[in-house]
Amino acid sequence: MEVCGEEGMAGREITLKNCRYVVRDHKVIEENIDILIEGRYIVDIGRGLGGGDEIDCREAIVLPGIVNAHTHAAMWIFRGLFDRGELHEWLKNVNKAEEKLTPRIVYLASKIAMLEMLSNGITAFVDMYYFPEETLKAVKETGIRAALGPVLTDEVVEEGESEKLVKSFIEKTKGFSRIKTVVNVRSLYSVSPETIREASKLTQKYDLDIHMHVSETRREIYLCKKRTGLFPVEYLNSLGVLNKRFILAHLGWVTSWELSLIKDKNASIVHCPASDMKLATAGFFPLRESLDFGINVGLGTDGAASNNSLDMFREMKVAVLLQRNNYWRTDIGERDVFRMAIENGYRILNIKGGVIEKNNVADLVLLDVKDLNLNPLSRRNVLSNIVYSANGNNVIATFVGGEIVYHREQKEAIYHSITDTLEEIQECINEIA
Amino acid sequence: MEVCGEEGMAGREITLKNCRYVVRDHKVIEENIDILIEGRYIVDIGRGLGGGDEIDCREAIVLPGIVNAHTHAAMWIFRGLFDRGELHEWLKNVNKAEEKLTPRIVYLASKIAMLEMLSNGITAFVDMYYFPEETLKAVKETGIRAALGPVLTDEVVEEGESEKLVKSFIEKTKGFSRIKTVVNVRSLYSVSPETIREASKLTQKYDLDIHMHVSETRREIYLCKKRTGLFPVEYLNSLGVLNKRFILAHLGWVTSWELSLIKDKNASIVHCPASDMKLATAGFFPLRESLDFGINVGLGTDGAASNNSLDMFREMKVAVLLQRNNYWRTDIGERDVFRMAIENGYRILNIKGGVIEKNNVADLVLLDVKDLNLNPLSRRNVLSNIVYSANGNNVIATFVGGEIVYHREQKEAIYHSITDTLEEIQECINEIA
Repeated sequence: MEVCGEEGMAGREITLKNCRYVVRDHKVIEENIDILIEGRYIVDIGRGLGGGDEIDCREAIVLPGIVNAHTHAAMWIFRGLFDRGELHEWLKNVNKAEEKLTPRIVYLASKIAMLEMLSNGITAFVDMYYFPEETLKAVKETGIRAALGPVLTDEVVEEGESEKLVKSFIEKTKGFSRIKTVVNVRSLYSVSPETIREASKLTQKYDLDIHMHVSETRREIYLCKKRTGLFPVEYLNSLGVLNKRFILAHLGWVTSWELSLIKDKNASIVHCPASDMKLATAGFFPLRESLDFGINVGLGTDGAASNNSLDMFREMKVAVLLQRNNYWRTDIGERDVFRMAIENGYRILNIKGGVIEKNNVADLVLLDVKDLNLNPLSRRNVLSNIVYSANGNNVIATFVGGEIVYHREQKEAIYHSITDTLEEIQECINEIA
Repeated sequence: MEVCGEEGMAGREITLKNCRYVVRDHKVIEENIDILIEGRYIVDIGRGLGGGDEIDCREAIVLPGIVNAHTHAAMWIFRGLFDRGELHEWLKNVNKAEEKLTPRIVYLASKIAMLEMLSNGITAFVDMYYFPEETLKAVKETGIRAALGPVLTDEVVEEGESEKLVKSFIEKTKGFSRIKTVVNVRSLYSVSPETIREASKLTQKYDLDIHMHVSETRREIYLCKKRTGLFPVEYLNSLGVLNKRFILAHLGWVTSWELSLIKDKNASIVHCPASDMKLATAGFFPLRESLDFGINVGLGTDGAASNNSLDMFREMKVAVLLQRNNYWRTDIGERDVFRMAIENGYRILNIKGGVIEKNNVADLVLLDVKDLNLNPLSRRNVLSNIVYSANGNNVIATFVGGEIVYHREQKEAIYHSITDTLEEIQECINEIA
């Protein structure tokens, strides 16, 4: 597969004509309107627009692209293999299986995961995994937007290799405005404080984000408190690493004073409700409180090994269901989670997108109004239907940076083009299981 | 639309050839095998079968039809209208809206809900709503299997009209083996004990099921305890109505001694996790305990007004997620919920189905192995993928009683055939909202 171009697209015009509904953001919805795209950007929204390739959108809902703000794309290979056991027990099985992974398998599996994410209307993802340069190769080929990068370990830091690793990754992303380097740190309990400090230093030096699993399980809280006397976020703060470039994934178990620290330092949280629930981590992530504090909270599926879906429509709904179940209240609703999955996702990526307006990147998703699960449909319930009833298979097409990177007409062709890959992946799975 | 035939099909043969996977039940999975259907029944499963219309299933997973064991089909019209408020507050708004409903609207909305359910692989549902004879008309036309019937109220019972109502409904279902009459009672708090006793008497006299919302909210428990000194299931037992024909929907709040009563009397429960969560009823339904007791627990979406989806694949997953979150354990898994949604559903209906074996009804669902969310796919994870990653739009075709009642090739045609209906429904919605 050839690499999706970055520069060649600059002048191309596309008009999405007569869009039945345009969900510009979590509040503003318009009807029967056109969207003009030029190159990578939205350049106009209004009536009577035209120019370039015109796409008839009379039977489409158009929304901004969705950001899967925490995942492990290559773990697609483990879907349906490890469905029992609480997180730490599950992790033991997964880590054993990961010993069989090769760079090539990471490349192949992450690439199919990206094709699946695109087919589900996901335009961007934040990733953490082994062999990130393999995932990077797949990102280049599939045309999806991504933030990914090396995972710093104590070994790498002790060997003095961390800066070289980060620099070399940055080098490989050059020329791709849709790809950002992040520095990954697995978790508090897997590395020394020196490694966390080093990661933070590098992100500041090279203007990058740091992405880390934090406060997933009560065991993690217990260990941190026992070892340091502090709760995990307090501890990170004590290391001086908490800042606006810090992405804290999971945070199922968190105190209100830790939320205050996150707010003060302007860090972001990524909530992963389905994965947390499936792994019985059982936390009560205080979503209403976090949003009311003004913290930027995104949404993620986590990997297909634990979710097992990569469908952010479903994730939005599960987020609402979890909060309403845990807090016995209905004060989290469709607007909150739509904003998290889309607008807040682009804030995490630090990209002008997530809202359909002039000069934002043309990352867009078209849904089919003819699907019964999106009906009855009116301006009044379009947002509700997207959050509570839509699924990834309602997607007609996905645009990233003005380019159609997925259209459902290609579905059969995509499958047939990957049958050999699926066989190769299955051989690896057979060795694991 | 013409009524789907009952008798004309008797001799027709269909062979599902070379099914990639056949999920015969929650334990047995076979590969590359044929299924022979004759008339309404499965007559053989094996290799080298043939006869009648042959359908190439090399790219399909075949599973038994799914039972939505508690819903209100016509509430499809309210999808996305009432998404806030805990159950009792929500119910006030819905009840007000229901005043605008006409028999015709119930007919139209329930019919589209059935088309949607069929497109999601649901072959049967248990219904409770106003104007049940309108829903019945739609059941006859769509070819879906259903259990539905009149809702007994104090008014009807006081006027001595209840038996007439039930008899007249039974009369209307004659000649349709796929349709069963049930006697519906809304809830403990909406009727007098006499009405519940009368409903039970009629079900015994006419060999029917009784279907009732029980123990949905803590307020309901409180009111029952205050009024009667008993918990709801204890109270039903004291009325002498609890028996194997009793279907208790929801039961979010239940004590272990009530579970014992349910077990002793051989009644069934229908769990509705997504609706309960969305309405913040917040119960801890003890699913593991109920199943270990040997109680027959089915699964339902509830109506589209509260879920808002009618997708039982998603419901299966949500059931697992809820249990794992509430109980901090992973002892509910894919086999449990698959069994609930399928095998236990057919037990509730008292129909030989829910398992792919000889002489069972040919209620079957075909899923597309080419959909990326069902991959990687092997015998090892096919059940997991169905439960944790599938959605209704993976369905290729749905068979009820040996007849193809939905094929995705009809999707566009279905939508275009109902555009007038959708407009008529939207007019009614506009009056409501």
